Amino acid sequence: MDESVVEKIDGGFAARARERQSRLTKPPGSLGRLEEIAVRLAAIQRSERPVTRGRTIVLFAGDHGVTEEGVSPYPSEVTGQMVANITSGGAAINAIAGVAKAEVRVVDTRSVRASTRNLAREPAMTEAEVEEAMRLGTEAVGGLESVTVVGLGEMGIGNTTAASAMTAALTGLSPARVTGRGTGLGDDGVRRKVAVIERALDLHGVCEPHDILRCLGGLEIAALTGFCLEAARRRKAIVVDGFITTAAFAIAWRIEPLVKDYAFFSHRSVEPGHESLLEFLDAEPLLDLHLRLGEGTGAALAIPILDAAVAAHNEMATFESAGVADKT
Amino acid sequence: MDESVVEKIDGGFAARARERQSRLTKPPGSLGRLEEIAVRLAAIQRSERPVTRGRTIVLFAGDHGVTEEGVSPYPSEVTGQMVANITSGGAAINAIAGVAKAEVRVVDTRSVRASTRNLAREPAMTEAEVEEAMRLGTEAVGGLESVTVVGLGEMGIGNTTAASAMTAALTGLSPARVTGRGTGLGDDGVRRKVAVIERALDLHGVCEPHDILRCLGGLEIAALTGFCLEAARRRKAIVVDGFITTAAFAIAWRIEPLVKDYAFFSHRSVEPGHESLLEFLDAEPLLDLHLRLGEGTGAALAIPILDAAVAAHNEMATFESAGVADKT
Repeated sequence: MDESVVEKIDGGFAARARERQSRLTKPPGSLGRLEEIAVRLAAIQRSERPVTRGRTIVLFAGDHGVTEEGVSPYPSEVTGQMVANITSGGAAINAIAGVAKAEVRVVDTRSVRASTRNLAREPAMTEAEVEEAMRLGTEAVGGLESVTVVGLGEMGIGNTTAASAMTAALTGLSPARVTGRGTGLGDDGVRRKVAVIERALDLHGVCEPHDILRCLGGLEIAALTGFCLEAARRRKAIVVDGFITTAAFAIAWRIEPLVKDYAFFSHRSVEPGHESLLEFLDAEPLLDLHLRLGEGTGAALAIPILDAAVAAHNEMATFESAGVADKT
Repeated sequence: MDESVVEKIDGGFAARARERQSRLTKPPGSLGRLEEIAVRLAAIQRSERPVTRGRTIVLFAGDHGVTEEGVSPYPSEVTGQMVANITSGGAAINAIAGVAKAEVRVVDTRSVRASTRNLAREPAMTEAEVEEAMRLGTEAVGGLESVTVVGLGEMGIGNTTAASAMTAALTGLSPARVTGRGTGLGDDGVRRKVAVIERALDLHGVCEPHDILRCLGGLEIAALTGFCLEAARRRKAIVVDGFITTAAFAIAWRIEPLVKDYAFFSHRSVEPGHESLLEFLDAEPLLDLHLRLGEGTGAALAIPILDAAVAAHNEMATFESAGVADKT
C-alpha cells in the first residue's frame, strides 16, 4: 500500500462483499447497518472477509488556556488527574474498552506545551505547536501495525469550548447554537461560554481548516487530526467518538475528504454542537445513548457492533450451504 | 424470592446504585443511558453491584397457517430449515450471539402443533394450544438458573402478519399503519397482507390481551409471552428483540404491568408496527440499526451495552479513590 497518501477505498471489494451478503441465510438487507459496515470494512481492508482483530482506543490528552475564562466547572488539574486515572485503569474508558476487548493507549500532548493559550485572547497554538501536536498523532499510528480498528479518545478540561468554537467556524452556525453544558455548566456558565466563543470568533475570523485548528483548537485535537489522516493512510477503520473527536475529524476531512470512507461515527453526543458537526459531515452515528463523557467511551461501545457485522458476514451459512429455500 | 408472582423491582437498591454512580470519576449523568441501565439492573437483581454473567438468547420457533394467504415471500418450510441452520450454528443469531458471549437455545413450538390455523379464517390457536405454548415458555426459564440476562428471539415464516394483527388490536391503529414488508414483500404483497389483517380483525373483534394472543398470535409468540412472565418472576433482565418479541412482550405487560421494569428494549426495527408498539409501551430502544431479521439479533447486539453499563458501574474509580478533584 502507498502509505504517503490516503487512497480511495476499494469499490471492487465492496461489490464482492455485497454479493456475499446476498447469499447469506437472511432476507436481503435485513441486517441493516451491519451489512453496510461489513461492506465498507471489506473496501477499507481490500478483503472479501474483513476482520476487526486488533483494536485500540488511542486517547489524546491536553489542557486549554481558555479555562481561565471559567468555561468549565472542573479545574484544569483534572486533565492530569484523569490521565493518571486512565493509566491506572480506573476511568470509564478502561471499563468499557475492557468489554470491547480493546487496548487503551494514552498520548499526553502536554509534552508539547503544558496548555494551549487562551483562544479568546490569542491563537490557541503557534504553527510550530500545531505541527508538533499533529506529529504526535501521526507517530501514534506507527505502533499499531497489527491493529485494524482504531478508536479515537480524548481528555481535556475546557475542550468542549474549543470544539464549539471550531464547529461554529466550520459550519457558520452561531456559537449559541453549537455550545452546550460540557461537563455540567449551569445556564449562566453556558452564557459565559457562548460569549467567550463569540469573542474568539471575532478576534480570529478564521475559515480555513488549518487556521481554525491553530486558533481555536487544542493540542489533543490537533494530534487527533494528525492521527486520523495517518490512520486512513494506513487503511485502518477509524471509530470516531463524540463531539471533540468529531471536530478533529472534521478538520482532517476538510484537509483530505477521502478520510471519511475510513470512518465509523460511533454515537451522537448530548452536546448540541455534535449534531451540527455530524450534519456538516453528513454522518449518521451508530448509537444514541445520551453520552457526553468523551475519553473514547462511545467509540469503545461501537466496536462490538463492528464485531457483530464482521461475524455475521464471515460466519453465516449461505442459502445453498445450509439447504435453506430462498425467496419464492 | 417469591417466584409465584412478578415483584416490583427494588427502589432501595436503585437509590444505592445511583449514589455510587455519583461518586465515580465522570461528570454526573455523562454516561447517559448506561447509568440508567446499571441502576435498573441493581434494582432487578437487588444488588448494588449488578452483573450480566450468564446470558442466553432463547429463540422460539413456530409456523403460521396464515402463510396460505401469500403474506410472505418465503415458504413455510423455511422455518424448519432455519431452525436446523440455527442449531448447526449457521444463522445470523449464532454469529452475533458469539460476539455477545451469549448462548443460543432454540425451543421449537411446532411440538404443540405443526402450525397455527389461518388467523384470517379462524382463531390461530385453541385455548389449550395457547396454554401449552405458554407452558413451553415458562419451562424454558427453568433451565436458566445461573443466567442473569435473557434475550428474546424468534423464527417463524408469517409471524410479522400475526404481530401486525396483534399490534392493530392492542393499539387500535389501522392495519395499514402497522403492517410492513416483513422478510421482503413488494407493494402488492403488503396490500394483500393488510387486507388479510383487516379481515382477521373484523372476524375476531378481540380486545382482551389473552384473546388477541389466541386469535391473532402464534405458538412461538405465546411461548414468548409465557417466557417473559416467568423470567420476570425469577428476576432476570429481559432483553426484548424486535417486532415479534415486542408483540409477545406487550401481551405479557397487559397481563402483568410489572414485567416492564425487567425489560430492556434492544432496538427499533424497520417494521412500522414496531415503532407503534414501542410507543404503546412507552419504551425507548437502545439501538436503531435498521434491522428487520429477528432471531434475537437485536437482543444479542444490545447485551454488550448492558455489559458496558455494568463494567463502568462496578470497575470505575471514585473521585476519592483516584484523587481526582470534583466539580468546583
